[in-house]
Amino acid sequence: MLHELFSPSVQHALDLVGIFVFAISGALLAVRKNFDVFGIAVLAEVTALGGGLFRDLIIGAVPPAAFSDLGYFVTPLLAAVLVFFLHPEVERTQTAVNVFDAAGLGLFCVTGTTKAYDYGLGLTPSAALGLATAVGGGVLRDVLANEVPSLLRWDRDLYAVPAIVGSTMIVLFIRFDLLNATTSGLAVVTAFLLRIAALKYHWRAPRAWNRRSSALEEA
Amino acid sequence: MLHELFSPSVQHALDLVGIFVFAISGALLAVRKNFDVFGIAVLAEVTALGGGLFRDLIIGAVPPAAFSDLGYFVTPLLAAVLVFFLHPEVERTQTAVNVFDAAGLGLFCVTGTTKAYDYGLGLTPSAALGLATAVGGGVLRDVLANEVPSLLRWDRDLYAVPAIVGSTMIVLFIRFDLLNATTSGLAVVTAFLLRIAALKYHWRAPRAWNRRSSALEEA
Amino acid sequence: MLHELFSPSVQHALDLVGIFVFAISGALLAVRKNFDVFGIAVLAEVTALGGGLFRDLIIGAVPPAAFSDLGYFVTPLLAAVLVFFLHPEVERTQTAVNVFDAAGLGLFCVTGTTKAYDYGLGLTPSAALGLATAVGGGVLRDVLANEVPSLLRWDRDLYAVPAIVGSTMIVLFIRFDLLNATTSGLAVVTAFLLRIAALKYHWRAPRAWNRRSSALEEA
Repeated sequence: MLHELFSPSVQHALDLVGIFVFAISGALLAVRKNFDVFGIAVLAEVTALGGGLFRDLIIGAVPPAAFSDLGYFVTPLLAAVLVFFLHPEVERTQTAVNVFDAAGLGLFCVTGTTKAYDYGLGLTPSAALGLATAVGGGVLRDVLANEVPSLLRWDRDLYAVPAIVGSTMIVLFIRFDLLNATTSGLAVVTAFLLRIAALKYHWRAPRAWNRRSSALEEA
Repeated sequence: MLHELFSPSVQHALDLVGIFVFAISGALLAVRKNFDVFGIAVLAEVTALGGGLFRDLIIGAVPPAAFSDLGYFVTPLLAAVLVFFLHPEVERTQTAVNVFDAAGLGLFCVTGTTKAYDYGLGLTPSAALGLATAVGGGVLRDVLANEVPSLLRWDRDLYAVPAIVGSTMIVLFIRFDLLNATTSGLAVVTAFLLRIAALKYHWRAPRAWNRRSSALEEA
Repeated sequence: MLHELFSPSVQHALDLVGIFVFAISGALLAVRKNFDVFGIAVLAEVTALGGGLFRDLIIGAVPPAAFSDLGYFVTPLLAAVLVFFLHPEVERTQTAVNVFDAAGLGLFCVTGTTKAYDYGLGLTPSAALGLATAVGGGVLRDVLANEVPSLLRWDRDLYAVPAIVGSTMIVLFIRFDLLNATTSGLAVVTAFLLRIAALKYHWRAPRAWNRRSSALEEA
């Protein structure tokens, strides 16, 4: 039986919000890379749906939600249109975009972990797949834009850790039979606040110990 | 029941033609990137089969056609051998390659859309997957060659639009119960001619409005 | 019925060795690219599990082994921790890493081919998928690190050929009903020794004939 964390319509609305904000980040990168209108739409779709698509292929949920729910497909196009016409205004609201993106991160790591567990994966793989759901779209976005994924770079504020914390909370709740709408919401909010704090205080992850100058030159 | 747009042998022959010309474009890029003979073969395979592979994973048609039909696997190898020995001659026939590639684009968007619909996807997702079938191999080719996918770049002639038109025609034909060999052929030819016209007249898609100089610098 | 090439515990131990050494190569590249500790872990996971993941998606073995066997998931993390703290020492043992990587290559091409055949693929597709299992993780590693996959570059010692030989031996053994632990081991050892020889004598594959200077400039 599927865990219905929230009422279906609330869940669906939250999904669309997450998809929308991820699509905005994809569309903005496309504008910065000087892509045309189709490149903007493609990067919006890939960023918004890539993580969930990967998850659904892994757990065997075909066709993936991205191809069976029309709202999932249309929402990134709306984001692309918005950015196409208003990108200077959207960039000026970068702080707002970051806040929404953090909300998407929190939401996707929680729903990704829950869905993976519902399809029979173990606790650790479910958490890993929740993380992949949350960050996968952004990695695909950067690969298509021919850039090093910002997820992997040391000079970016923590992005994976908030999602790992959120996913881990969910599997612990499942393990101790505490998963419900309230505890799920708690995990979403924790991941969200951690990401916001990472942005505000520029938290970063360490690089390998004893790095030599030869390696630093490449940086 | 599968839509048999054409007689099976005609359909299969057309598929192989599309695979062959896409493989040529992959092999030529590999030569330009100075890859070795295995790199040429890999890029030929990926370009020719990547779009269909993605479609088959999404709709749950495993193992994908690329791994169950030996002709699909061998044809790109023939293209790779041809380019390996004769690439200056092949490049000199770039116009011919472009014409065949346009034919492959038209064919793949139509067969991709039809197959997706036959596997139970809705009309809009089917059209989206038809587009992905037609352009996916080229995107993978460019990602492996570490280049920005030419699909996304504003300075390339229209490539997605002809495929979108072809896919859209198919779902409209399905919607109004008009899909048959003749109307399918019409969609293939329309997409093909649009692509040829885009090449001839250098039709391009617009970039985002109000681009600032800061963005242009990066271009 | 699955071909049990070796006793299950031996097979599993060999798999983990292959996963570990591939993970080391991913983690080392991450350190060279100046990624943070999460980037190191991600690249270790992707390099170690990417090839098998691709194979399992193609043959429809979902959820893939990478997400159902906890050892497969944890082993790359151990490799990442090791490289994080000791990477200068690990790099100094590059020869040892190369030897282990060659062992992983031999093992993965054999187990990949066998598993693909067990899931009903034909002989040629099984061999192709065995090759993809062996080299897929390394290709994903290089794509994520935003580099041209070393598999495709002409200036790297032969990597695909040893795997092709190993995979081909397996399908010939299957064809002539000779597949057992001894012959499988022979294919692993052959692929392993070919790769070691390629490294020692710098065997390389040819590039396309008649390359023009214009192409060489890009090299």
